[in-house]
Amino acid sequence: MNNDSSARIVRDLREWIATAAPGARLPSTRALVARYGASPVTVQKALRVLAAQGMVESRPGVGTFVRAVRVARPHDYGWQTAALGSPRDRAPGRPTALRTVPNDVIALHSGYPDRELLPERLVRAAFTRASRGDAAVARPPSAGLPELQAWFAAELAAATPVGVTPPAPGDVVVFPGSQSGLSTAFRALVGAGRPLLLESPTYWGAILAAARAGVRVVPVPSGARGPDPEELARAFERTGARAFYAQPTFANPTGARWPSDLADRVLDVVRAHGAFLVEDDWAHDFAITGEAVPVAARDDGGHVVYLRSLTKSVSPSVRVAGVLARGPARERLLADAQAEAMYVSGLLQAVALDVVTQPAWRTHLRGLRQQLAARRDLLLGALREHAPDLRPESVPEGGLNLWCRMPDTTDVARLVRDCERAGVVVSQGEEWFPAEPAGAYLRLNYSGPRPGAFPDGARAIGRALARQRGSLGGTEVEEWA
Amino acid sequence: MNNDSSARIVRDLREWIATAAPGARLPSTRALVARYGASPVTVQKALRVLAAQGMVESRPGVGTFVRAVRVARPHDYGWQTAALGSPRDRAPGRPTALRTVPNDVIALHSGYPDRELLPERLVRAAFTRASRGDAAVARPPSAGLPELQAWFAAELAAATPVGVTPPAPGDVVVFPGSQSGLSTAFRALVGAGRPLLLESPTYWGAILAAARAGVRVVPVPSGARGPDPEELARAFERTGARAFYAQPTFANPTGARWPSDLADRVLDVVRAHGAFLVEDDWAHDFAITGEAVPVAARDDGGHVVYLRSLTKSVSPSVRVAGVLARGPARERLLADAQAEAMYVSGLLQAVALDVVTQPAWRTHLRGLRQQLAARRDLLLGALREHAPDLRPESVPEGGLNLWCRMPDTTDVARLVRDCERAGVVVSQGEEWFPAEPAGAYLRLNYSGPRPGAFPDGARAIGRALARQRGSLGGTEVEEWA
Repeated sequence: MNNDSSARIVRDLREWIATAAPGARLPSTRALVARYGASPVTVQKALRVLAAQGMVESRPGVGTFVRAVRVARPHDYGWQTAALGSPRDRAPGRPTALRTVPNDVIALHSGYPDRELLPERLVRAAFTRASRGDAAVARPPSAGLPELQAWFAAELAAATPVGVTPPAPGDVVVFPGSQSGLSTAFRALVGAGRPLLLESPTYWGAILAAARAGVRVVPVPSGARGPDPEELARAFERTGARAFYAQPTFANPTGARWPSDLADRVLDVVRAHGAFLVEDDWAHDFAITGEAVPVAARDDGGHVVYLRSLTKSVSPSVRVAGVLARGPARERLLADAQAEAMYVSGLLQAVALDVVTQPAWRTHLRGLRQQLAARRDLLLGALREHAPDLRPESVPEGGLNLWCRMPDTTDVARLVRDCERAGVVVSQGEEWFPAEPAGAYLRLNYSGPRPGAFPDGARAIGRALARQRGSLGGTEVEEWA
Repeated sequence: MNNDSSARIVRDLREWIATAAPGARLPSTRALVARYGASPVTVQKALRVLAAQGMVESRPGVGTFVRAVRVARPHDYGWQTAALGSPRDRAPGRPTALRTVPNDVIALHSGYPDRELLPERLVRAAFTRASRGDAAVARPPSAGLPELQAWFAAELAAATPVGVTPPAPGDVVVFPGSQSGLSTAFRALVGAGRPLLLESPTYWGAILAAARAGVRVVPVPSGARGPDPEELARAFERTGARAFYAQPTFANPTGARWPSDLADRVLDVVRAHGAFLVEDDWAHDFAITGEAVPVAARDDGGHVVYLRSLTKSVSPSVRVAGVLARGPARERLLADAQAEAMYVSGLLQAVALDVVTQPAWRTHLRGLRQQLAARRDLLLGALREHAPDLRPESVPEGGLNLWCRMPDTTDVARLVRDCERAGVVVSQGEEWFPAEPAGAYLRLNYSGPRPGAFPDGARAIGRALARQRGSLGGTEVEEWA
C-alpha cells in the first residue's frame, strides 16, 4: 500500500500472528508505537489492514485479538465437473508475458515496459489532479469521455493524408484496455464459428481473445517484412473470412513495420473482399526510428478498425484504449462494450487525457525513444557476442522485442527450463503462433528491468544453446559450481 | 476537466471557432488572459485542450489558428451489412437506467445513486493517496490485488455461520465492475446455447449480459417475496439448467429480500440439481432495515458464485467488483476474465480498498441508510397522495427502487412519453423482464438528484395515469398552459 512503514508493521505482525494462538491478544497500540518507532496513525492503519484481511478483530475498549480460525474441511467440488462440462475452447494457459518473477532474475519475458520507462511523474500528477475533478465521482457516457474520444480521433486525423476524410470523435469507443477492445472486436465483428484471419506469428493476447470468442482462426504467414498480400487474398477467398487481425507497425513479436506500398496492397485486398482490417497499433508510442503511421489513416471507407492502447506507454494502472470504427461496425462494437462492462472509469479516462496532452509527454516520448534504442542495441550486441546461434530476424525499428530464431533442432522447452535454472526468464516462440510454430524461436523483451544484466542473460542463453549442440558436454560441472 | 476556468474558456472559444473561418488566428495568449481574467497557465491549458480536440493548431512563435476542416464526403458503409451479417442476438437497446438527462428534469429512472449519496471526500482522499503509491505505476496480478481479495473474502467470512468453512482470499477474482463479472459468469459457467435460469423480473444488465453470452434464458417468476422454490425446481428439471441468477437481497427492481428459510430452500434446490446460484449482491451497502446477509455465506460447497460490487456505493469511477467462487468454477472465471481484460487497474483496486477500510466508511454507510429511508418514504408518500393508481408492490427494506404496478390496461409506453413531456423521466417495467412483462409496471429510483422534487414527479405521473382513465380528459389544456 502507500505507507511503507505501515506495510512493514503488517508484514511483521502477520508473522507473529502465524504462530500465535487464536484469540491471543496483540500488544497495545502504545506498545506497538514504541516497538516500531512509528506514529499511532501508522500503527492503527496497520491494524485496520490486518482486520480487513481477517487476521485480527478489534473489540473497542478491550484490545485487538488474533481471529479464531475456523477449521476448514476439505471439500469435494467434483459435482462442478458435470455442471461445467468441458471448456468450449482449449485456450492457451497462463502466458509467459504476464508472469511476475522475483527481482533477482534476469527478466526477458515480460510484455510490459519497466517502470523506469514510464512517465511516472506525469501519471502521479494526473491522478492527483483527477482526484479533485468531476471525473472522481461522475459516470461518463458508455462510448467514452468526449474529450478523450476527440483526442483519439485528432491523433489519427493528424496522420490522415489529403483526400481522405479524417475520423470524427464520435467514431471512437473507449475500452478498459486493448485486450477488451480485441475481445469485443472478435465477438462483435466476427462471431463464434466464423473465420478470422490472424498474422502468424502474432500477439498471444489476440490468439487468446480469438479462442475465447470461439472464432475459427485462420493463420496467415507473416514475418519481418509483414504478410504476403497474395497469400492474404487466397486466405480470404478460401475461407470467406471478413476480417484480418494484424499489427502493421512494430508487430509483436516480429518487429515488422509494413512498408507504405504493402499497407496499400493489404488495404486493396481487404477492400476487394468486403472485409475489415483490425489494426492493433499497440506500439504507437514505442517508435525507435521514424514515426508510427497507422494504416487506418489511409482509409475512410470503414474498412479499418483501429485499436490504440495507452496502457503500456502511460501506466499499467491506466487501462484505457480507444477503438476507432466507422459505420455500423462502430455500433456493433459499442453495443458489445456496453453489455460487457457498461462504461470505463471516467477517472482513468481523465488521467489518460491529462498525461497525453501535457507538453512533457512529448519530451518523455523523445527520451523513451533513446532509451529503447540503447536497450535494443545492448541486447543485440550481447546476443551477437554470447549467443551467436540465436539469430534476431531483424533489427526492429520500434516495439519492445527481439524475435530470435534458433537452429531447428533446438528443444525450446528444455532451453527455456535451462535458462530459468540459470536465473534468466525467456518466452518460447510457440506462444505467438496460432497453430504449430514455423520454427524454433525465442522472444526477448528489451524493455524489462535491469538492462545492465543483458550480457549475463545473453551468456546464459548462449550456454544453454551450446549445451544442446553438445559442444559444451564436458562443462556442465562449471555451471553447477 | 479539473480546472473550471479553463473549461469555461474552452467552451467559449469553441463557440467562437464554430463561426470563425478556417485558418483564422486566435487572439494572443496575452489578450485571452486579459479577456477572461485568467492566468496564462489556465489559458495555455485551454488552448492545449482545443488542440487535442483538433479544433486549433499552434505554430510556435506565430500563433494559434483555427484548424482548416477537411471536407467530409458522405460514405457508403453498405458493404459492412454483408460483412457483419445479422447480429447473433437482438439484445435490448440502450437501457433507460443509463440515460443522461438535463439537470432540470425530475430523474426517477437512473440506476446510479446521486452524487450527494457518495462518500465523495473519502474517494477523493483515496485517489490522492493512491496517486503517490505503487499502484499508480504497477501491474497487479490478474486475479486482483491480494489485499483486496482478502478484504472481499473477509467480508463474506464475517457473515459465515459456525460450521461452514469461510472463503479464502484466493477464492476471489477482481473484475472491472459487476457487469463484467456477470458477462464472464454467464460465458464461463453456462456458455452459448445452454440454459440459464433468471429471476423475472430482474436486473436489465443481467438480461443484456445473458443475451450477449448467447445463453438460453429461462425466466423463473419472482416477486416481492422472492422465487417459489418448487417453480425453480421444475425449471431445473425441465431445462437441465445448471445455473440460476438471482438477487436475493433487495432485488432490482422488486426490492425483495429472501427470508432465511427461503434462502435455505433455494440452496437445497440448487444443490439437488448440481447447479450454481449466481448471487448478485448489488445492494449490499444499501440496506435500510437490518443488514444485507449474503446467501453465499451459507454455502461452502462451491454452489454459490457471489458477486459483490463496489462501484455503486463507492463511486462510478471506481469500477471494481469481487467475484467469489470455489473449485474449478473459480478457474473458469479467472481464465475468461484474463482473456477478456487481462487485469483490473491496480490503482482503482487500491482506492476501493482504501475507502472501505476507513473508519469513516462505516459512518458514511450509517448516514446513507438514513438518507435512503427518508428518500424512499418521501417518494412513497408522494405517490400515495398524488398517484394512487400506482401501487408499490412492497416497501423495500433496502436498495434504490420502488417497483410499482399500474392498472393492467395502462399503455405504459404512452405513460412514459407523457411523463417525459411533463419533465419527469421514468423507466417502464418491461426492461426488467427477460420475456413478456407480467403486468404494467414502472420502476422508480429514489436515489437520484433533487428528492425535493419527488412530489412534483408523483403529481406528473398521477396526472398522466389519470388521463389514461379518461377522468381528466378535459384538462389536457392545463398541461400545455
